Amino acid sequence: MATITGVRVEDVRFPTSVTADGSDAMNKDADYSAAYVVLETDAPDPGNPHGKLGGYGLTFTIGRGNDIVAEAARQQAAALVGRDVDELAADMGAVYRELTADSQLRWLGPEKGVVHLSLAAVLNAAWDLVARRAGKPLWRVLVDMTPEELVDVADLRYLSDALTREEALDILRAREDAKKERLAHLEETGYPVYTTSAGWLGYSDDKLRRLCQEAVDAGYQHVKLKVGANLAEDIRRLTIAREVLGPDRALMIDANQVWDVPQAIEWMGVLARFDPLWIEEPTSPDDILGHAAIRRAVAPVGVATGEHCHNRVMFKQLFQADAIDYCQLDTGRLASINEIVAVLLLAAKFGVPVCPHAGGVGLCEMVQHVSVLDYVAIGGDLDGRVTEYVDHLHEHFTDPCVVADRGAGTAYVLPSRPGYSTQMYEESLDRFRFPHGTYWVRDTANHVPH
Amino acid sequence: MATITGVRVEDVRFPTSVTADGSDAMNKDADYSAAYVVLETDAPDPGNPHGKLGGYGLTFTIGRGNDIVAEAARQQAAALVGRDVDELAADMGAVYRELTADSQLRWLGPEKGVVHLSLAAVLNAAWDLVARRAGKPLWRVLVDMTPEELVDVADLRYLSDALTREEALDILRAREDAKKERLAHLEETGYPVYTTSAGWLGYSDDKLRRLCQEAVDAGYQHVKLKVGANLAEDIRRLTIAREVLGPDRALMIDANQVWDVPQAIEWMGVLARFDPLWIEEPTSPDDILGHAAIRRAVAPVGVATGEHCHNRVMFKQLFQADAIDYCQLDTGRLASINEIVAVLLLAAKFGVPVCPHAGGVGLCEMVQHVSVLDYVAIGGDLDGRVTEYVDHLHEHFTDPCVVADRGAGTAYVLPSRPGYSTQMYEESLDRFRFPHGTYWVRDTANHVPH
Repeated sequence: MATITGVRVEDVRFPTSVTADGSDAMNKDADYSAAYVVLETDAPDPGNPHGKLGGYGLTFTIGRGNDIVAEAARQQAAALVGRDVDELAADMGAVYRELTADSQLRWLGPEKGVVHLSLAAVLNAAWDLVARRAGKPLWRVLVDMTPEELVDVADLRYLSDALTREEALDILRAREDAKKERLAHLEETGYPVYTTSAGWLGYSDDKLRRLCQEAVDAGYQHVKLKVGANLAEDIRRLTIAREVLGPDRALMIDANQVWDVPQAIEWMGVLARFDPLWIEEPTSPDDILGHAAIRRAVAPVGVATGEHCHNRVMFKQLFQADAIDYCQLDTGRLASINEIVAVLLLAAKFGVPVCPHAGGVGLCEMVQHVSVLDYVAIGGDLDGRVTEYVDHLHEHFTDPCVVADRGAGTAYVLPSRPGYSTQMYEESLDRFRFPHGTYWVRDTANHVPH
Repeated sequence: MATITGVRVEDVRFPTSVTADGSDAMNKDADYSAAYVVLETDAPDPGNPHGKLGGYGLTFTIGRGNDIVAEAARQQAAALVGRDVDELAADMGAVYRELTADSQLRWLGPEKGVVHLSLAAVLNAAWDLVARRAGKPLWRVLVDMTPEELVDVADLRYLSDALTREEALDILRAREDAKKERLAHLEETGYPVYTTSAGWLGYSDDKLRRLCQEAVDAGYQHVKLKVGANLAEDIRRLTIAREVLGPDRALMIDANQVWDVPQAIEWMGVLARFDPLWIEEPTSPDDILGHAAIRRAVAPVGVATGEHCHNRVMFKQLFQADAIDYCQLDTGRLASINEIVAVLLLAAKFGVPVCPHAGGVGLCEMVQHVSVLDYVAIGGDLDGRVTEYVDHLHEHFTDPCVVADRGAGTAYVLPSRPGYSTQMYEESLDRFRFPHGTYWVRDTANHVPH
């Protein structure tokens, strides 16, 4: 027996705005933050003889308002206290439906914004708990499921005009045969990644050139830069990046929603000369038809979006409207594996490669599990796939993601420890808990985000 | 001089779930609630020699989570303290841009969910304050604006592929000539309304029949019923309603998002026999392409949605995709007049009638101002327009909306007192403030919503 005995929700904020890490055309002063959920149990922790089994999950925000998400998570997670862990694990689809069935809280979205971000944090913690209880990394829990079990986990509501349950089962059954071979391949090479660490808007030209060179030296085949604040500066920065990368490495660019649709098309008419693989978030993340119009106009440059795509219904339409070339789903914005599996199934049906959004804090730790699941059990393909990696804040996690070049380009090394890789050190919480952690109380006379 | 000296935000909840008022297929136990914002000033209140000028605004929720919205409003409204009221009034477009420019809070939407609901509450209070300071009802402040002033108020960001600033000005200029005649007409007849008070799912057949008859006796030409929980019951209830209404009065039905797209089409194949004017919220409010598919399939029954349509970018696409016959924008979900004017302009350009969502608490008080603005200065037409009215909770407002039949059917009588009509009595706040108001502390041993 293992019973959930309590919930702890933390508002954790890192002062990334001090160094302009994470700066882009829309978000100039991001303080990377996590609404962090701990599900406590009364069972021993198989990995730590002195500790208790727990579930650790988070969603990512960029500072102010993280307390609001934390409070919503606190209210939603309360329903899990007193529940048996093995019963939850046996039917995570039911857990998802129960937590999304509160019609009063649903009104505040529905299925979007604060209550969906907080639900992601709670359910991410629940999935972490399930995997720790099973003694497996989460990706393995998922790839070990039968097609029926995986479909039962997925939220297919509102999708049946694009994907029926039977079609979902057919996709999964077709992947069953070669699962082992694909997994063996990933265990050898890792899952391919690209880096955004070089390209934040707030960095100087010299720093940009140096970081691009370091990315090349580290084996990266793909590098992403932020654009959209100033056209002349974009041209100058992309010139530097293309010089360092050479003609064969892929260069991606990201406008972080700053353009209207006609403006995106006009601006990309100029930036196309740098041969970008994709333009990311060219306009409002809600603008499905706008993305479709941009995609028609800027081809062969691809269109990518998803980090702000708030639920599976929006992704369904992005696919139906032929609006995107790359699906950048986000593990803190979609309501956990339950909704992610639905989006992976849709992407597989429509033939759109999934290249998850990461970076922030904790997102890299999560996306590696999702990408492994996608390749082994759902999408079944690596062609055109590359998952984001940003080298920030991993030191706060007990099981941080690892990237390495094993000969096929830089890649996430498959996580091997139980869980979803998102447990943070208590020392990190004590330092960066907002506003009473030691960093915020002591170290920052000049940096108060409010 | 008038300076905003403080902000008060209240979590107010009414126990409507006790009587099944507001019950529908999605929301079975709504406790109508308001995140209520008061902007306090140091200036005398022209309407009350013993009081100070204030601004009173709200957004509507249905219970749990109203505290979360209130907290977000508290954080957003803090930026207005210390500001001069006349400076705000001179450029409400700038106020809107300032409050939406916080990129850290924006991440929690963007422009959706809790932070957008709370922004609506704050800006609704600011608009109320502006109108009180001017000594006019809000609708008159707005129809007195020049086309340039009204466009400067509107948020046109992300809309330029569908509506440029010049096109917006052209629409408004074309309405200038006959403004006075249209206003005189409304002052005589009022703005046409329909009633939803008869049709909540939780009501018995006898109560439904009696309320339909009362609506007919009161002069209503339009009555709306909830559907979608059980097909046999829908058929029985619609049979009763059609019997009482006769063939000539309009009957609208509302499924509150319970169907998938194919299910909506199948179900409406059965309910079409009752000749509904529209089917409202047939599926997920995010499903633009789904609404378009349903509309093609169920014509000549109309498709209506909007109360959960979270921003102008979504409405833009509903229009671009020919997805709806009626635009039911919501004054608590869109970010106040600034975003509503943009949607009214889009609707005018695409020729879609605007029939605002109301009911809940305080929504009727607000929509009367919006509908008058639309007819007099933007849409310029009453054909196909009818605004929702629900006879609940008006007794808590100091300037409640009034409906009357002046010979052209039941209609909102134009509000004449200064403001946006959303000030609540302090006695009501004292009784229904959650969780410490006297109702929640004393009167409800058996009704605790948590």
